[in-house]
Amino acid sequence: MLTIYHYWFCPFSRKARIALQEKKVEFDLKLELTWQRRPGFLAQNPAGNVPVLVDEEANLRICGPYAITEYIEEQYPTPDLIGESITDRAETRRLVEWFDDKFHREVTSLIINEKIMKSFLKRGNPEAANIRYAGQNIKHHLKYIEYLTDRRNWLAGDDFTFADISAAAHLSCVDYLGDVPWQNFEKAKDWYARVKSRPSFQAILQDKIAGLAPAAHYRDLDF
Amino acid sequence: MLTIYHYWFCPFSRKARIALQEKKVEFDLKLELTWQRRPGFLAQNPAGNVPVLVDEEANLRICGPYAITEYIEEQYPTPDLIGESITDRAETRRLVEWFDDKFHREVTSLIINEKIMKSFLKRGNPEAANIRYAGQNIKHHLKYIEYLTDRRNWLAGDDFTFADISAAAHLSCVDYLGDVPWQNFEKAKDWYARVKSRPSFQAILQDKIAGLAPAAHYRDLDF
Repeated sequence: MLTIYHYWFCPFSRKARIALQEKKVEFDLKLELTWQRRPGFLAQNPAGNVPVLVDEEANLRICGPYAITEYIEEQYPTPDLIGESITDRAETRRLVEWFDDKFHREVTSLIINEKIMKSFLKRGNPEAANIRYAGQNIKHHLKYIEYLTDRRNWLAGDDFTFADISAAAHLSCVDYLGDVPWQNFEKAKDWYARVKSRPSFQAILQDKIAGLAPAAHYRDLDF
Repeated sequence: MLTIYHYWFCPFSRKARIALQEKKVEFDLKLELTWQRRPGFLAQNPAGNVPVLVDEEANLRICGPYAITEYIEEQYPTPDLIGESITDRAETRRLVEWFDDKFHREVTSLIINEKIMKSFLKRGNPEAANIRYAGQNIKHHLKYIEYLTDRRNWLAGDDFTFADISAAAHLSCVDYLGDVPWQNFEKAKDWYARVKSRPSFQAILQDKIAGLAPAAHYRDLDF
């Protein structure tokens, strides 16, 4: 049995959970508060971040979103979540990087850091300027999602791929806090509603984070 | 013929150049000053960053370090630069992420931003605090390289892989500016000397950046 060491507001952990659900691979979740720098966890992953995917029986530890994404696809090829042709694979990975790097830097990490980590770790008050900046940035990303879905069925092409999983994983973290301006981006909302209705996404929508209720519409398929 | 759109101090562009040299694939280099946000370039890569790998004849555009790394390996499998077994592949990718994400955030991006981009783009003076912080961080990374090479022939195991390429690409950017404290890390230096002596690395050592001479030892194989 696989175990994912995760943290609730880690988009990369959500991505691994959704992908394994798509592949119908069972796994356990273990919450890891990475800032505690637990020696047992650092021994598994010296970088100290989640997700880490562990298969104790096989003595296997896969660390970090890059290795985990490619591992899941190589180890469980059905259904295909990267694409078959060279062009499709490059497009999926370009968009995965768009969300895991650019969206993360410009939106997710700012919002999670200001709204969750600072209060949770008692590291001062949220900086309104950072939250505003993320609030501006997310509009460009939602516009880009609309540009893509105007031309394609899913973000990278005809099929649901890791590009959709990455984008939805990041958006779901921000959406939990009610910080996605869906009302101005109907087409992006339509795409997210389609992701939300997939069986692989249901556990994400049921996440219960101690002491912090999700935004009212977070769980609604029709939001 | 392939073309790499690159920028001299972009470690990810260096990584693509070294990998293609290892695979003995010819390519042209085109300098792209990404901050100019040239429309023709943004049409190729809306994220606006380098490297972008273009094959005009095949009408192929591969954008970003993640897609390019995996494309190079899939398209030109010899010599293998990721590894064969599941464990080896996960280990290479874990370390690629270590350098492309962690080292980049903690060292390369700080030093390049403060020492190169700020003066080049006339965006104020370098922040000494950021340069000092990067100077502390790099020591931990050099120590980690020593930990790995104490146990292994190359960073990820017996063979030279993208882990070594990523690490050396980042270090070479910082080393051009003379900011790697090699004198205190003899074993990391031995590993880097072995990378430096590879034919795939020679073009990197010959880089001539207008208006900025490299540190005295940058090109020396025996430094």
